[in-house]
Amino acid sequence: MTDTATAWLDKVNWDDEGLVPVIAQEAGSGDVLTLAWMNREALALTVKEGRAVYWSRSRRRLWRKGEESGHVQNVREIRLDCDGDAVLLSVEQVGGIACHTGRHRCFFQRLEGGDWCSVEPVIRSPADIYGSGEDNE
Amino acid sequence: MTDTATAWLDKVNWDDEGLVPVIAQEAGSGDVLTLAWMNREALALTVKEGRAVYWSRSRRRLWRKGEESGHVQNVREIRLDCDGDAVLLSVEQVGGIACHTGRHRCFFQRLEGGDWCSVEPVIRSPADIYGSGEDNE
Repeated sequence: MTDTATAWLDKVNWDDEGLVPVIAQEAGSGDVLTLAWMNREALALTVKEGRAVYWSRSRRRLWRKGEESGHVQNVREIRLDCDGDAVLLSVEQVGGIACHTGRHRCFFQRLEGGDWCSVEPVIRSPADIYGSGEDNE
Repeated sequence: MTDTATAWLDKVNWDDEGLVPVIAQEAGSGDVLTLAWMNREALALTVKEGRAVYWSRSRRRLWRKGEESGHVQNVREIRLDCDGDAVLLSVEQVGGIACHTGRHRCFFQRLEGGDWCSVEPVIRSPADIYGSGEDNE
């Protein structure tokens, strides 16, 4: 696509599958919300639309974060790391819920005494967010 | 190894290469410092030693962060995400420098006006950190 064939996209070190890992960090709280993946088109669309557009590895398609849940991530800033193989987004998380489990963020399991313990509450049930029979995101 | 064959390690969804991406976030500032990778042994050693031990994909060996630079990451907390395929560390960054370029953190390139701009200063030169002829980390 002509509109994504820009030099800044070439500076990203896409992996063998054409993807790069992307960290979404909440602008206000500093909380790390999610780690997701983008391909070239997803990153170009994220910049163009000002909202996080990821590549869903499980569904093998572009995934506009919040397309089903309404939990859009509006992007304030985009950073690239020293090796060009990781991206950091500063986002405003609409609804305060980033995780498909209905929690604030995906990193809700903390290692305590040799096991992962869920340490953050479900703010809204997935059934309420997605209805039944919908693919969660 | 017997001491790493524990249930909590089985709950991590290791990728096809036996790795998981790991985000290091500075405990005090909330700054996202680095994205690196761990295999099973690296994560077990991180817990055992209380400092970040990564798997270097370029050197194909365990890499105790700070082993050459002294810029150790002491680990306060370890979290796993909802799908078990990403890890978040809360760390104290010794020396305040996480990046091999001598910057505070690896995410020093910000997208501005269609290109990546370096927006964080070099605190200490790599030559000073590593000497000449050393592999940077």
